[in-house]
Amino acid sequence: MDAKEISRAVISRLPRYYRYLGELHDEGVERISSQELSVLMKVTASQIRQDLNNFGGFGQQGYGYNVKFLYDEIGSILGLDKKHNLILIGAGNLGQALANYVNFEKRGFLIKGIFDRNEEIHGKVIRGITVRPMDEIEAFMKENDIDIAVLTIPKTGAVEIARKLVSYGIKGIWNFAHVDLNVPDNIEVENVHLSESLMKLSYNLGCKDKN
Amino acid sequence: MDAKEISRAVISRLPRYYRYLGELHDEGVERISSQELSVLMKVTASQIRQDLNNFGGFGQQGYGYNVKFLYDEIGSILGLDKKHNLILIGAGNLGQALANYVNFEKRGFLIKGIFDRNEEIHGKVIRGITVRPMDEIEAFMKENDIDIAVLTIPKTGAVEIARKLVSYGIKGIWNFAHVDLNVPDNIEVENVHLSESLMKLSYNLGCKDKN
Repeated sequence: MDAKEISRAVISRLPRYYRYLGELHDEGVERISSQELSVLMKVTASQIRQDLNNFGGFGQQGYGYNVKFLYDEIGSILGLDKKHNLILIGAGNLGQALANYVNFEKRGFLIKGIFDRNEEIHGKVIRGITVRPMDEIEAFMKENDIDIAVLTIPKTGAVEIARKLVSYGIKGIWNFAHVDLNVPDNIEVENVHLSESLMKLSYNLGCKDKN
Repeated sequence: MDAKEISRAVISRLPRYYRYLGELHDEGVERISSQELSVLMKVTASQIRQDLNNFGGFGQQGYGYNVKFLYDEIGSILGLDKKHNLILIGAGNLGQALANYVNFEKRGFLIKGIFDRNEEIHGKVIRGITVRPMDEIEAFMKENDIDIAVLTIPKTGAVEIARKLVSYGIKGIWNFAHVDLNVPDNIEVENVHLSESLMKLSYNLGCKDKN
């Protein structure tokens, strides 16, 4: 299987398959047909078959998919069978909320360090992790084999910090700052722009009012 | 202009135009050409012209777009010229982070009430808003003309709470619970599935390792 051949649209649907298969597995379900999965997930059975055929067609006609096998396989495709070491930059409300979210750890995303520019919270401990000053990021990244940085800082300064992280060797940035980071193409950036999500909701509500 | 004719893809790009135009306006820029905007936003000038032509073509050949006019117009399309009254359900770390986020208010999203099932935090005040018990939601919604609920609760119970919110007359749900809510089609749901966002980042990092 060559991951590069899979379309972005399929990839963007994988986490949802992963979630449903994980829940089915937790409930003790061993096999499921594309029809049953279709009812659960509210997508067509043909879409499910097309999507999952990208990974070599784990299903058997009339027999269904092996839930555990498919769950593990999609997990592996998503890279969830590997550990990722993260640092979190910005220990404000959102940063603390993410640091306290245990589900990321279950998926192999381990927050190793927390950094903030506010001196007053240096030394504060959040879920066992000490908040450190920004000038320790570079050394910490090297010592702790960090590949992902979570940016939970205001947009002012975010571009500059991203630039520094790149120079320190970061591979991926999970960006909550409401700005485009402008990093080189070989750095993966996943943006979570909460205001934009809320605007989409507002737009859709507005369309409804007009109907 | 008929909002219903605009494609989902264009709509999903509007918040980003809105952000850039707002920043330009704050910097005192009055006019901008599609070429200049193209360099800033790193999309093609032809994409920009196509997108903005959906709204009646505000640009004038050789003269550029009126930044303030376009900003206001897109804001109005997104429904940001109206006020939305919100309730927040779940006053854990993430709920508190959102309640403390002032930028939503600037866009007209006003958190009027906060609810939590945990009795120990009833009466606690977050940015001037008292945390209330869940059984007060229905009356509160009626008294305060609430149209959007923000769900920052674990996935267990989220489907049931969404069902209740619908019966109380909610119009839109901003859902952070990691579950599909299964509400009627006339209720707008905007999901923010943080784990899935992180999985996409992990997938993209994995592709890189293989190259």
